[in-house]
Amino acid sequence: MTLVLGVDIGGTGIVAGLVTADGAIRDRAAVPTPAADGPVAVLDAVAAAASRLGGEFAAAGVGSAGVIDRGSGSVRSATDSISGWAGTELRAELAARLGVPVVVDNDVHAHALGELWTGAAAGRRHVLFAAVGTGIGGSIVVDGRPHRGAHAVAGHLGHLPVPAAAGRPCPCGGSGHVEGVGSGPALLAEYRARGGTATTLPEVAALAGTGDALAAAVLADGATATGQALGGLVNAVDPELVLVGGGVASCGPAWWEPLRAAVAAEVLPAVRGTPVLPAELGADAAVLGAARMAWEELA
Amino acid sequence: MTLVLGVDIGGTGIVAGLVTADGAIRDRAAVPTPAADGPVAVLDAVAAAASRLGGEFAAAGVGSAGVIDRGSGSVRSATDSISGWAGTELRAELAARLGVPVVVDNDVHAHALGELWTGAAAGRRHVLFAAVGTGIGGSIVVDGRPHRGAHAVAGHLGHLPVPAAAGRPCPCGGSGHVEGVGSGPALLAEYRARGGTATTLPEVAALAGTGDALAAAVLADGATATGQALGGLVNAVDPELVLVGGGVASCGPAWWEPLRAAVAAEVLPAVRGTPVLPAELGADAAVLGAARMAWEELA
Repeated sequence: MTLVLGVDIGGTGIVAGLVTADGAIRDRAAVPTPAADGPVAVLDAVAAAASRLGGEFAAAGVGSAGVIDRGSGSVRSATDSISGWAGTELRAELAARLGVPVVVDNDVHAHALGELWTGAAAGRRHVLFAAVGTGIGGSIVVDGRPHRGAHAVAGHLGHLPVPAAAGRPCPCGGSGHVEGVGSGPALLAEYRARGGTATTLPEVAALAGTGDALAAAVLADGATATGQALGGLVNAVDPELVLVGGGVASCGPAWWEPLRAAVAAEVLPAVRGTPVLPAELGADAAVLGAARMAWEELA
Repeated sequence: MTLVLGVDIGGTGIVAGLVTADGAIRDRAAVPTPAADGPVAVLDAVAAAASRLGGEFAAAGVGSAGVIDRGSGSVRSATDSISGWAGTELRAELAARLGVPVVVDNDVHAHALGELWTGAAAGRRHVLFAAVGTGIGGSIVVDGRPHRGAHAVAGHLGHLPVPAAAGRPCPCGGSGHVEGVGSGPALLAEYRARGGTATTLPEVAALAGTGDALAAAVLADGATATGQALGGLVNAVDPELVLVGGGVASCGPAWWEPLRAAVAAEVLPAVRGTPVLPAELGADAAVLGAARMAWEELA
């Protein structure tokens, strides 16, 4: 049976999987990302993870952190989550190491493609995918394909203005963006700034789940801002559904209820019924989406 | 020489033009929209305008106010700018009256297509077009085609949140949207609320051009809000260029300079150079874009 390799390269971990033509992961290997050691170490780690898998593969798809130029196969720009990652010739370097055709894209686009293949958006064509975690990213899927834009930047949903972020710094260097109030770190910082004592977002979410008013208020405020940004985008982009993943989406009803209420308050009557659903594939999503790209490359 | 008909149906006027394969308008007829008289009167007025033109046409493209379902050819929904317009079988009714194949779309998408054909976005593939006038609409052009979305609603750029609009009503029935502070009527209302005495937006623009501080401040505030919304969308959609048309875009440097500054402040470093340009085709844009659709239908 022909298999392909799907790879998810993140700032902390690399996951490689052998994936069938119908989206089943047959084997999986995870290694830490040697992020401080530079691109060569990271590329070698991908190859090492692939070599541990129990089978051959005919092609490889790779979703990577950073702004990835699918056409040239290179990393256009990246944060410092992987040292020196910008400029890496990702496709060429991995093709040389793996000995098969390689297709590369941004990890969030790969995540979205996974959900469109076997996840919560299976069979859909127009999907707004938001990944709310350390940052807020996403993918605007148009007619089944992630829209990449003129500079491969499309999908940066975290850098939309919302009222609650006015004047607040954003990790991008600007200010006023939803990422500055809606991301996981922003939620935790806000909770601490308001006097909370928990030290991780899952703890804050657990407190909110038991009725803690401060934890619930902080999650509601962040979710409301995120929902406003997503609702505005629903008006502009009109997806069949909004899919939300990332660590913050695991915060439970204290986050989801105000998120959905904010989207509903923001959207035009004509798109009022657009579903807002949790992503389903979790940590496997980007591996599956990357594998899907590899299958398309072989087709 | 084969010609096609391009038609722009607005709330106040209908323009029909005979258009060549390379985008020249050979003849043009304009009639008032009998908006209060209902759909049949409007459809008949289109046919009457077409009959005045000095030539045959092989197909017709129509850009109309309202949410237009290009697939079915019908008006999905519309404001009351044309009485009873929602539900009109626009394509079928016009094909019966004109005796040629007809293709229909939203007038703002048609405007964008005109600019992509022979205007400021000629030859571009990814364009964010904003029409800032009585309302704020637009078209997200992906790979040369207006993105229409799951319910033909895509392009409603006026219903994105911006801080200056927080708590302010929007014509859509919601609140907090950029249209509520950035549209022409919103600018004029704000100018009057702050004590200004001019009674039209062109007068306000003329005052701003002569250094009137109140007029300039009102235009700057509206342009800043509009620029924030467009800049956030640039991050999410990553167009090659942003094109801005509509009546408010005729307000001169007092509006354009703060608009461009706000876009520049909002965008990520990777898309900082994205041009923000005025639309070029003015009143002919939608006629040309509609004609372009007709040519594509014939091809």
